[in-house]
Amino acid sequence: MNRLLLNCDIGESFGNWTMGLDAEVMPFIDCANIACGFHAGDPSIMRKTVSLALSHGVRIGAHPAYQDLAGFGRRSMAYGAQELQDLLHYQIGALDGICRAQGGRVSYVKPHGAMYNDMMANPAQLRAVIQAVAAYDRQLPLMLMATRDNSAAQALGDEYGVTLWFEAFADRAYDNAGRLVSRQAPGAVHHDPETIIGQALTIARGDALTANDGSALHLKANTLCVHGDNASSVAAVQRIREALDRQSAP
Amino acid sequence: MNRLLLNCDIGESFGNWTMGLDAEVMPFIDCANIACGFHAGDPSIMRKTVSLALSHGVRIGAHPAYQDLAGFGRRSMAYGAQELQDLLHYQIGALDGICRAQGGRVSYVKPHGAMYNDMMANPAQLRAVIQAVAAYDRQLPLMLMATRDNSAAQALGDEYGVTLWFEAFADRAYDNAGRLVSRQAPGAVHHDPETIIGQALTIARGDALTANDGSALHLKANTLCVHGDNASSVAAVQRIREALDRQSAP
Amino acid sequence: MNRLLLNCDIGESFGNWTMGLDAEVMPFIDCANIACGFHAGDPSIMRKTVSLALSHGVRIGAHPAYQDLAGFGRRSMAYGAQELQDLLHYQIGALDGICRAQGGRVSYVKPHGAMYNDMMANPAQLRAVIQAVAAYDRQLPLMLMATRDNSAAQALGDEYGVTLWFEAFADRAYDNAGRLVSRQAPGAVHHDPETIIGQALTIARGDALTANDGSALHLKANTLCVHGDNASSVAAVQRIREALDRQSAP
Amino acid sequence: MNRLLLNCDIGESFGNWTMGLDAEVMPFIDCANIACGFHAGDPSIMRKTVSLALSHGVRIGAHPAYQDLAGFGRRSMAYGAQELQDLLHYQIGALDGICRAQGGRVSYVKPHGAMYNDMMANPAQLRAVIQAVAAYDRQLPLMLMATRDNSAAQALGDEYGVTLWFEAFADRAYDNAGRLVSRQAPGAVHHDPETIIGQALTIARGDALTANDGSALHLKANTLCVHGDNASSVAAVQRIREALDRQSAP
Repeated sequence: MNRLLLNCDIGESFGNWTMGLDAEVMPFIDCANIACGFHAGDPSIMRKTVSLALSHGVRIGAHPAYQDLAGFGRRSMAYGAQELQDLLHYQIGALDGICRAQGGRVSYVKPHGAMYNDMMANPAQLRAVIQAVAAYDRQLPLMLMATRDNSAAQALGDEYGVTLWFEAFADRAYDNAGRLVSRQAPGAVHHDPETIIGQALTIARGDALTANDGSALHLKANTLCVHGDNASSVAAVQRIREALDRQSAP
Repeated sequence: MNRLLLNCDIGESFGNWTMGLDAEVMPFIDCANIACGFHAGDPSIMRKTVSLALSHGVRIGAHPAYQDLAGFGRRSMAYGAQELQDLLHYQIGALDGICRAQGGRVSYVKPHGAMYNDMMANPAQLRAVIQAVAAYDRQLPLMLMATRDNSAAQALGDEYGVTLWFEAFADRAYDNAGRLVSRQAPGAVHHDPETIIGQALTIARGDALTANDGSALHLKANTLCVHGDNASSVAAVQRIREALDRQSAP
Repeated sequence: MNRLLLNCDIGESFGNWTMGLDAEVMPFIDCANIACGFHAGDPSIMRKTVSLALSHGVRIGAHPAYQDLAGFGRRSMAYGAQELQDLLHYQIGALDGICRAQGGRVSYVKPHGAMYNDMMANPAQLRAVIQAVAAYDRQLPLMLMATRDNSAAQALGDEYGVTLWFEAFADRAYDNAGRLVSRQAPGAVHHDPETIIGQALTIARGDALTANDGSALHLKANTLCVHGDNASSVAAVQRIREALDRQSAP
Repeated sequence: MNRLLLNCDIGESFGNWTMGLDAEVMPFIDCANIACGFHAGDPSIMRKTVSLALSHGVRIGAHPAYQDLAGFGRRSMAYGAQELQDLLHYQIGALDGICRAQGGRVSYVKPHGAMYNDMMANPAQLRAVIQAVAAYDRQLPLMLMATRDNSAAQALGDEYGVTLWFEAFADRAYDNAGRLVSRQAPGAVHHDPETIIGQALTIARGDALTANDGSALHLKANTLCVHGDNASSVAAVQRIREALDRQSAP
C-alpha cells in the first residue's frame, strides 16, 4: 500500500487578517497547499508559511486561484484557457520565488476554490491547467479530485507527461459518481471524528466507501485533503495522522 | 571599452490599457525591465512581453515595485526591510515563472519608481534590496543608478556577492553629485536628439559629462536607461543603438 | 418624438493609463456613464471626469462593474444577488461622493460589461439590479438594452418603481429578437458612417430596423449608446448629434 | 459636562476574513468608524456593519484609508493633497451609498491608520482632509486627535466651517505635548482595567491627566476611542460605558 499523503490548505491569512491554525496543523501533514496572493496570502504571509513548511519538512504546493481576494477565489470567473495558464505561471512562480529565497522549491500544484471546481467540471479548463503545469515544470504533480473514474483526467495527464495526484476527502459524503455531495444536502459533511478517521483509513487501504445511494465506491486516491481551520479540525488531522501511521507500520 | 547595455522599462500595459511601444523599441535594446504586476503588467501582459523579449534575444529583468497600481508604483510607501524583500521575491519569482513557461529566465533585477528612488536615497533600503537579490539568486545583477561615487553601493554589493550594474541617463541633466536634476528645474530633461546621442556616446566612452554647475562628472556606467514611450523616444533609442554600434565597431 | 439621448462610457482611464477621448466626445453627448473604480476609473480620474461632465451640462450616470480591474469588468463572475446589490450601492455611492464634492449628483445607473450582459441574460440578476437602484434612490433611472420585447424588464421596473431607459446601438446589427449579433459574426459591426447615422435616425424616428434575418425590428429606445474610443468614433458621434438635432428641430 | 462619545473602529473584516467583535461592542458605543474598503471592509461587510449600527442607533462614521489592503492602511503613502481629497470623497461616498440603501447616512469622518497619523503630523495633509470634508458636506464633523493645544487644528476647522471632534484615549499614556507615547516605550499601553476606566472618567470630567513626564495634561476631548478587538477590550468598553453613564446621571 502506498502511503496516503495528507494535504492541507495553508497560508490563507492576508495582511492583518489571520485564518487557520497553520502552526498547529503543520506537524501532522505531508503537503502544504500554500496560497499565492490571489485569493489569500500576501508576500510576507507566504514567506512565513514557506518557512514553517520547510522547518517541518512538509512538501510545498502552489495553491493558485482566480484573482478575487474579496471572494476568496470561490466565485467562478470566465477566464480563457490562455489567461488561466498565465494566472498559474504567475502564481506558481511567485511562490517558487519565495521558496527559492529560503532554499526551497514548489513541488506540486493544487488549484483553489472555483478554479479547482471549474477544472473538475470542464475538460478544457483541466487541459489548460495541465498544460500550464507541464510548461512550468513537468516534474510537478498536479493535485485534483479523485472520482469514480479518473481515466479521462489520467489520459490528459499522460498526454502532457504530468503526474496526477488524486485527492479524496475523509469528512465528506460522496455520490455514486464519486463527486462530493453538496454541502447543502443533509449528511454531506461528517462531523463525528470516528466516522472521519474510519473513512480516512478505508481510503488508505484502498477499500470501497459507501456512496450516498448505498453503492460501493472505490476511490483511487494518492492524498487526503485535511483542514486546519480550527482546534477540532486540527485534532482530527492529528488522529488521522496517527491512524495512518499505525496502519502503515510493518 | 565594455559595451554599454541599453535598458528600457517594458510591459507596463495592464489589462485593457496599453502603454509604451514595446514591439517597436524591443529590437534596439539589450535589457527589458519587465513590470511584475504590482505597478503594471498583469500575467497575460507579462507572458506577451516575455515572449517578445525572448524572440529578440533581449535579456529579461524583473522590474518590481511597491504594490500601488493606481499610483503606478511612484508613491513612496513605508515598507519595512523584511516586507520589501518579500515583495521582491514574490515579483521576481512571478516573472521568472512566466519566463520558465517559455524556456527563459529572469537575468537581472531593476526596482521601479519609488522603490528605486527610496533604494538610492536610503542605505537600509538598498541593503534590503541587495539581500533580497542575493537570497533569490546571487547570479542576478542588480541595476541601480550611477552617481559620482558608487563606492558605498559597491561595498554593499560586494558584501552580499551581488553584481551591480550602474545605469546612466542620456536624456537627463546631472548635478555635481551625479544625481539627476529634478524634472521641475529648467534644462532637466534633454529633448534635442543630438544632445541625447552625444551624452550617450560620452557615457559609453567613459568620458566626463558636464554637471549643471559646470563641473566635470565621471559616471562609471554599465547601462543606459532608454524609453519606449512614444515614437520620438523610440527613434532616439534607434539612433543611440546605431551610434553605440558604430562606436564599438573595430 | 421624444429626444433620443446619446450615452457614452466615459472615465475609463486608470492611474497612469489613458483610455478614450473623453474631452473630445463630451460636447456631443447627453449622458456620461462614468466608471466607478471596479473595472476602470480611480478616485482622481473620477473627479476629473465628473468635472468635465458638469462643465458640459452632461448627465452623470454611475457605470458600476464586477470587481475585476485586470479583466476590465468583462468576465462574468458568480456574484449572489445580495452581493451584487452591495457592489452597486458601493460604486454608485462612491461616484455620488465624487459628484457631491463638486455640487453634482449621479442621475442614472448603467451597469458595465459582464454585469450588464448577465443582467440582460438572467432575470434574477436584473431584479437584483433594479432592487439595488430602488433602494439607493427610486428617482434614478436604470439604463438597459432595448430588445424586441421590453415588457418583462418593464414589469420588473414597475414592480420597484424604477424608471427604465432602454438603449439601442447605431453601429451594431440586430437579430430578430432584438439582440446584438455577436461581434464574431460577419456584418455584426457597422463601420460605414452613413449606415451608422442612418440607423441612429431610424431609431430616433421610432421606425423599424431590419434585423439580420430580414425581418422588421421595432426597438423602443430612449437612448443611443455611442463611443469615444478614437477619433473616428468621436467624429461619428458628432455627426449623429448633428443629425438628431436637425431631425428634432421644429 | 458634555457627554463624552465612545467611538470604535468597526467593520474591519474583509471577504472571508473576520476581525473584531463588532456585534459585541456595538451596544456600548456611540459612534462606529466603519471601514470603507481601502484598508478593510468590502461592500458586503459594509452593508452588514451599517445594518448593525442602525439597529443599535449608533452614529455611522466613514473611516477612510490609504489604498493598501495588504498593509491595513498603516503604511504611510505619498499622496498629494488633491489625490487625498479624491480618496476621501470616494470612500465617504461609498459608505454613504451603502447607508442610503438602508435609510441611513454617514454622519462624521475619521481617517484611519497612516492617513490619520499623517494628518496629525502634517498641517497640509490636515488642511486637505478638512477641505475634503467641507466639500462633501460641511455638516459632517471630522474626528481627530486631541493634543495639549488643539488651536491650530481648530483654526483650520473654522476656516472651512467644519466641526472638529477631538478624541482621546483611555488606554494609552501621553507625553507632555499630548501625543501618545510610542507603543515601543514601556508603559505606553495601559492594560489594567481600573487604570483605563479611571483615565476615561478623568477625561470625561475634563480633569487633567498626568503625562509621562509627570506634568499635568488637560485634553479637551469630545470623544474617547475604544476597541472591540477581543473579549477583554469589549469588557473594558462595557465598563467605561457604565462608568460614564453613572457619572453623567443627574
